[in-house]
Amino acid sequence: MTHFGIKKLLVLVDLDQTLADFEGHFLEKYKEKYPGEPYIELKDRETFYIGDQYEQMEEGLSKKVKTIYTTEGFFRDLPPLEGACKAVLEMEEMDGVEVFICSSPLFQYKYSSKEKYEWVEHHLGKNWINKLILTRDKTMVTGNILIDDKVKVTGAVHPPAWTHIVFTACHNKHIRLRDKKRLDNWTDGSWRALIEDFKKRI
Amino acid sequence: MTHFGIKKLLVLVDLDQTLADFEGHFLEKYKEKYPGEPYIELKDRETFYIGDQYEQMEEGLSKKVKTIYTTEGFFRDLPPLEGACKAVLEMEEMDGVEVFICSSPLFQYKYSSKEKYEWVEHHLGKNWINKLILTRDKTMVTGNILIDDKVKVTGAVHPPAWTHIVFTACHNKHIRLRDKKRLDNWTDGSWRALIEDFKKRI
Repeated sequence: MTHFGIKKLLVLVDLDQTLADFEGHFLEKYKEKYPGEPYIELKDRETFYIGDQYEQMEEGLSKKVKTIYTTEGFFRDLPPLEGACKAVLEMEEMDGVEVFICSSPLFQYKYSSKEKYEWVEHHLGKNWINKLILTRDKTMVTGNILIDDKVKVTGAVHPPAWTHIVFTACHNKHIRLRDKKRLDNWTDGSWRALIEDFKKRI
Repeated sequence: MTHFGIKKLLVLVDLDQTLADFEGHFLEKYKEKYPGEPYIELKDRETFYIGDQYEQMEEGLSKKVKTIYTTEGFFRDLPPLEGACKAVLEMEEMDGVEVFICSSPLFQYKYSSKEKYEWVEHHLGKNWINKLILTRDKTMVTGNILIDDKVKVTGAVHPPAWTHIVFTACHNKHIRLRDKKRLDNWTDGSWRALIEDFKKRI
């Protein structure tokens, strides 16, 4: 991507389960609210939409699942994944790299849209409000890379501008990716090698 | 833009002062709240940021201006511009055209982010939640056309993917545009000729 003739690597980073611990926080809140109901350990999570797997386990559970993540404060209070914020702040400081956070609010946007701004402001800083893009269709966003835990990211633009890097999560770790690279965590430094590699290609 | 090999015209439409009557609603609410203060008639509005012109008129007024558009309900209650919603719904129904609403929330996002979703849901329909993109940098969004009343739309991507069509507003009508087309309203049918013209070019 060019910025007044200077080529910059534009990196889009997803929020839920890429920077923020959606799954861990969900399980904690679910157990608190429904102590008598069965639950799925993180190691056994397998579908992207959490309600799908709970519903398979027991009819009606997806409704209970939904009450958790549509509650006020759920998105605001998501803990960051280990090393995520530090990595993103360092990535933004790299020469020739620009980072945007690219997140889908819930269709029930009442709390999630505002709380995503609150999360970004609190964990990354006030100026990052300028770097948050909320869209239910990420193919509409321009960039060189999208780092996202959702394995299939589709929408109006096909193919999208970006190369999709799958961020490893409990629900996608068992999926064999033929044509996509993975980023497993923000702590072992591999994100930096990945970014450096893409910088060479633009 | 392609969608599984089929070329579609992707149209991005701004919200405030392109679909929604920001200026008219502001003036009404400002006069209500500050009946003793001077105000600027719509025909005399000249700057993109409304506070700038009020501050030029009298020091300290920009703070009062800000209290109006940061109040809860301001964005939710914006009346649509004449013909705007009908035009957008008809545009979406045109063969080979896909429309997204592309809007910048305030840096003070507390109410504006959620209320933009409410506006779109109320005036265009629930499914349009999927078609709202909130970003403070519109150059990050892919599309063939951006219809927007802001004359200078800049950001990380230069040049952006889209051609900018300036939607005529009180604050930009006096500006001479050398390299950009205008769309003056949603009522005289000229938007349709504009879209048909762009369809031929893709």
